[in-house]
Amino acid sequence: MLPPPKGTRDYLPAEMKKRRWVMEKIREVFERYGYSEICTPAFESLELLEKKGGIGDENIKDIYRFQDKSKRWLGLRFEMTASVARIVSGKPNLTKPVKWYYITNLWRYEATKKGRQREFWQAGIENIGTKDELIDAEILAVTHDSLKAVGIENFVIKISSRQIISKIADKYCIKNKNDFFKLIDKREKMPEAEWKSELAGQFKNKSDLESFLNLAALPWPEAKKELSTVAKDDIGYLEKILNYCKSFGIDKRNLKVDLMMIRGLDYYTDFIFETEVEGFKELGSVAGGGRYDKLIELFGGQPTPATGMGIGIERVMEIVMGEIKEKPAIDVLILPVGEEFKKYAVELAARLRKEGIYCDIEVMRDKFKKKMAYASELGVGLVAIIGKEEAEKGQVTLKDMETGDQKKFNIEEILRNNKSAES
Amino acid sequence: MLPPPKGTRDYLPAEMKKRRWVMEKIREVFERYGYSEICTPAFESLELLEKKGGIGDENIKDIYRFQDKSKRWLGLRFEMTASVARIVSGKPNLTKPVKWYYITNLWRYEATKKGRQREFWQAGIENIGTKDELIDAEILAVTHDSLKAVGIENFVIKISSRQIISKIADKYCIKNKNDFFKLIDKREKMPEAEWKSELAGQFKNKSDLESFLNLAALPWPEAKKELSTVAKDDIGYLEKILNYCKSFGIDKRNLKVDLMMIRGLDYYTDFIFETEVEGFKELGSVAGGGRYDKLIELFGGQPTPATGMGIGIERVMEIVMGEIKEKPAIDVLILPVGEEFKKYAVELAARLRKEGIYCDIEVMRDKFKKKMAYASELGVGLVAIIGKEEAEKGQVTLKDMETGDQKKFNIEEILRNNKSAES
Repeated sequence: MLPPPKGTRDYLPAEMKKRRWVMEKIREVFERYGYSEICTPAFESLELLEKKGGIGDENIKDIYRFQDKSKRWLGLRFEMTASVARIVSGKPNLTKPVKWYYITNLWRYEATKKGRQREFWQAGIENIGTKDELIDAEILAVTHDSLKAVGIENFVIKISSRQIISKIADKYCIKNKNDFFKLIDKREKMPEAEWKSELAGQFKNKSDLESFLNLAALPWPEAKKELSTVAKDDIGYLEKILNYCKSFGIDKRNLKVDLMMIRGLDYYTDFIFETEVEGFKELGSVAGGGRYDKLIELFGGQPTPATGMGIGIERVMEIVMGEIKEKPAIDVLILPVGEEFKKYAVELAARLRKEGIYCDIEVMRDKFKKKMAYASELGVGLVAIIGKEEAEKGQVTLKDMETGDQKKFNIEEILRNNKSAES
Repeated sequence: MLPPPKGTRDYLPAEMKKRRWVMEKIREVFERYGYSEICTPAFESLELLEKKGGIGDENIKDIYRFQDKSKRWLGLRFEMTASVARIVSGKPNLTKPVKWYYITNLWRYEATKKGRQREFWQAGIENIGTKDELIDAEILAVTHDSLKAVGIENFVIKISSRQIISKIADKYCIKNKNDFFKLIDKREKMPEAEWKSELAGQFKNKSDLESFLNLAALPWPEAKKELSTVAKDDIGYLEKILNYCKSFGIDKRNLKVDLMMIRGLDYYTDFIFETEVEGFKELGSVAGGGRYDKLIELFGGQPTPATGMGIGIERVMEIVMGEIKEKPAIDVLILPVGEEFKKYAVELAARLRKEGIYCDIEVMRDKFKKKMAYASELGVGLVAIIGKEEAEKGQVTLKDMETGDQKKFNIEEILRNNKSAES
């Protein structure tokens, strides 16, 4: 039989149940912060998606692209920000701030590895219209709360500032800023010696390089003193974010300034962040984002400040999958032991469902033993047996699968009780 | 600005909130019947999708198709059954019955009209492994309960049987069965006179045609008497389904046998159904399905009976959209009246969110009047004001937006109360 296409996966019930749990926990956090869900098409015009190439987004080379029957070029979305920018720039009268979230699939034709597929799911928020440190801190708080909500405790949100890095480059009269940024981005992907030697090419002399490496190694409280003259305002901005983070209740140990992080070459203009989970460094960042104040303009809208973040669902699942408790799909399995009892079984099921009880009727297996084995396999807590004796007396036997206890109840009584409970 | 691609739509928060409500209501019904969610890739190998062309599925011509970078031909899925058949046929040891559901988007490059887009969402179930009238009735019960759960009352599930129609064709020695089926499918899409004249071509003589048209016009209790000799077993099967439907609690007025329905030419083998909603006939069927006992085999699996159904989310939305009450995204909007009070606002928000209260902080508007106007626009029930007086006394003013009542509370007290409630 054909497998699913390379880089994609099927999620069957046991795994999907856990994914659904994770997605709903995250949704709850998003909504508690006043974000509202949107849904946009899976594909966009290729022209729209490729706009981001103009600002250095390398993901555009990995777009699944195709022509429809009318020869329009389309592409599967590789992130949501372009679609959001399309909507916001086309509706200048939208009340600000726009606080939107999505939990959806995206596609990138990339090399696959653990936690990276060609079809992947992302839960993200966008906050458009406000330039305020409080909002940047809110983005971090939503990230923090989301990860905690799904049971991840040992993570570090690393925040940085493109403005500060740019001023550092100015301070050292870096030869090619773009190449310098690229090298900072590659820091953890290259052997250290090689990285340093490439970096050296950007500096006028060895002592500047040494000075920079020393600065890069400093913890934030010292680094900010060192930079206090060259990037006073930007440091003030970052410090305000950090203070608000405290008020939002973000654990100190979950947050860290790390200036040696630049988050690709794409659309971020200022504050940026990534998130590393202890013991899962090989997954890369599980959540990231930042401020992108120029993007709405790029898509034809009015200048509009904006900030946002995305959480990688597959990466989160790699971390929490084993921790989430399995639960059977149903509470009760009804076992009619014989064709003639199926009608009663259906009536019982209908009543139970009306009361919000999840149940199912076993009709495939002839032998009682096989029916019970199936109940065990499902991991169901309770079976309701309807056999000859039960049918004659209008009863049902309820059996607790864990303790083995069983007791007969009158069907009519159960149905009547439910009926009176309703009225 | 570029619009979304033709045949696709953006769903912004007001509408999305209602869609989400509808989808979750349907999900609840599916799960109450013991169905578990699965998720499969948005695209499949084109070869897999086109397999269904071999059994007459005309939708394959509307597939969005493309090659990936490695020149593999892929297609966006146009329904879920092929993906489900791929999985089930590849896993012969899956415990039966397989009871799966999905709520997802699908794509067909078709002419667009009300309730029909090129990207559309479907909520559906598949029940694989059991041939039993009880299961077919369950499919109908899930459809019935789903529509009722979202507030649709005036619908008719029309059920039919391909086996009975086939035996009717035999009875009249129809010249070309396939063409005859196609004509039955087109009955409501053609002017009646034209339909009758085309139909006449399939009959040996005028009296047979008249006899057939009389039969077609009969209500089920009489039609089944007329057919009792030619399709005894198949009538028995349908009758059993109807009886189980009664036990499942399906309203009599929501269910009707209508033999003049065949549901396209695709993979159904037996029992089929469609659902028409009173006052919304132009939408076509809002939910449909049936039994497809040959499909798993077609996809390379062992012969496996199966039955399923799908509900069109866009069509359901056309019907219920106006009925669902609007709800604001948040319960409380916090208004810090001045820069210096934002920190308090953040702390208050953090505490409220910990208690599960949905809230947001207004930081964009300078003037108090504008802040209040924004609160009105959001439709929020409560605003929490933090101004000079409140800050000095460590208080917050809570204002009920509906009654206009307002009262001062001590912030520390609120925070402390929440803290003690936690421990």
